[in-house]
Amino acid sequence: MDISAEDVLAVHQLYGRQSHAIDSGRAADWAATFTADGEFHSPSYPDPAIGAAELTAFAERFHAGCVDSGEVLRHVVSTVEVIPGGPDTLTSRAYLQIVGTPTGEASRLHRLTTVVDDLVRTPAGWRIDRRVVLRDD
Amino acid sequence: MDISAEDVLAVHQLYGRQSHAIDSGRAADWAATFTADGEFHSPSYPDPAIGAAELTAFAERFHAGCVDSGEVLRHVVSTVEVIPGGPDTLTSRAYLQIVGTPTGEASRLHRLTTVVDDLVRTPAGWRIDRRVVLRDD
Amino acid sequence: MDISAEDVLAVHQLYGRQSHAIDSGRAADWAATFTADGEFHSPSYPDPAIGAAELTAFAERFHAGCVDSGEVLRHVVSTVEVIPGGPDTLTSRAYLQIVGTPTGEASRLHRLTTVVDDLVRTPAGWRIDRRVVLRDD
Repeated sequence: MDISAEDVLAVHQLYGRQSHAIDSGRAADWAATFTADGEFHSPSYPDPAIGAAELTAFAERFHAGCVDSGEVLRHVVSTVEVIPGGPDTLTSRAYLQIVGTPTGEASRLHRLTTVVDDLVRTPAGWRIDRRVVLRDD
Repeated sequence: MDISAEDVLAVHQLYGRQSHAIDSGRAADWAATFTADGEFHSPSYPDPAIGAAELTAFAERFHAGCVDSGEVLRHVVSTVEVIPGGPDTLTSRAYLQIVGTPTGEASRLHRLTTVVDDLVRTPAGWRIDRRVVLRDD
Repeated sequence: MDISAEDVLAVHQLYGRQSHAIDSGRAADWAATFTADGEFHSPSYPDPAIGAAELTAFAERFHAGCVDSGEVLRHVVSTVEVIPGGPDTLTSRAYLQIVGTPTGEASRLHRLTTVVDDLVRTPAGWRIDRRVVLRDD
């Protein structure tokens, strides 16, 4: 590896923290996995979310949508590949499955997406500066 | 990270070992991923399993149930977040998908659960002292 | 752990790199996760692929099949257990889910498999010397 074990694991930890944050309705914690002016681009939503305020609002809407619809949605992350960049930058790629469970029903896979992230090292640790979500459908 | 790469990876390894143990019918190996008086609480089963003997019996019943039903069940773990505790304690959270494959049929997702584990450092490595399984349905 | 954090993570990274390579049609990159005379044995295909040329051809056929069928297939890896071997050998076991998304349709789980890999340390890093894929159906 051309990248330290610490840096690879920091990305794994960031992904774990991020999914559990948004899926638990902790919107500010989710936004904090991005840089202060971080960008989130996904074809699943009409507009990108850029900067902490928009990212937080995005995560709040996501969780409110789950509560309203009676379906629990989970961001299941796997198959992480961390690619070295400069000393303070990384690129990472992972599969993100959206799995939903309507109350009282079986769980089902909604979609398989790939996240492609540009990360930067900050005083608080690695943060996502730009995420692009790619859908398979 | 406020937690060492070694400690985070030990949890990933524990989860890998644990799933492959129960899914392969190695019940004592599964029980050994818990402390000697470890606790397993899940709404999928009527009673918790507490202590090595009950944990082993639980894993034996699980695997015997698969054999009897002709459906292979797998514990698919992902999206791990390891949260620092004291010097010899950790909390960990992960998604656990139960995927089943009846003989000759397609695989299907049975349920998406979250495991929330309290871990303690033992002379033999990190062990689960208390697991609580949360179901989305 | 009896195995270093670096070695465990090298396997996680290898798996991430491998899946994204074959799923993106980078056949030679996929083959390069094996040793030069590496072996791939899977009951999903009539013959094993042995050596770089056959491995590359296998990955090319896989991706061409996706393009022809209009269904994107993904190799979703999780639940990795890295088992120490000798100083320059490892065994690893993981769940590999094949998830497909036909154009314009929902994603679906095709099959749950277990990969069992013998790995060797090479000057270029850990490589798969022999992979056996086990199917649940």
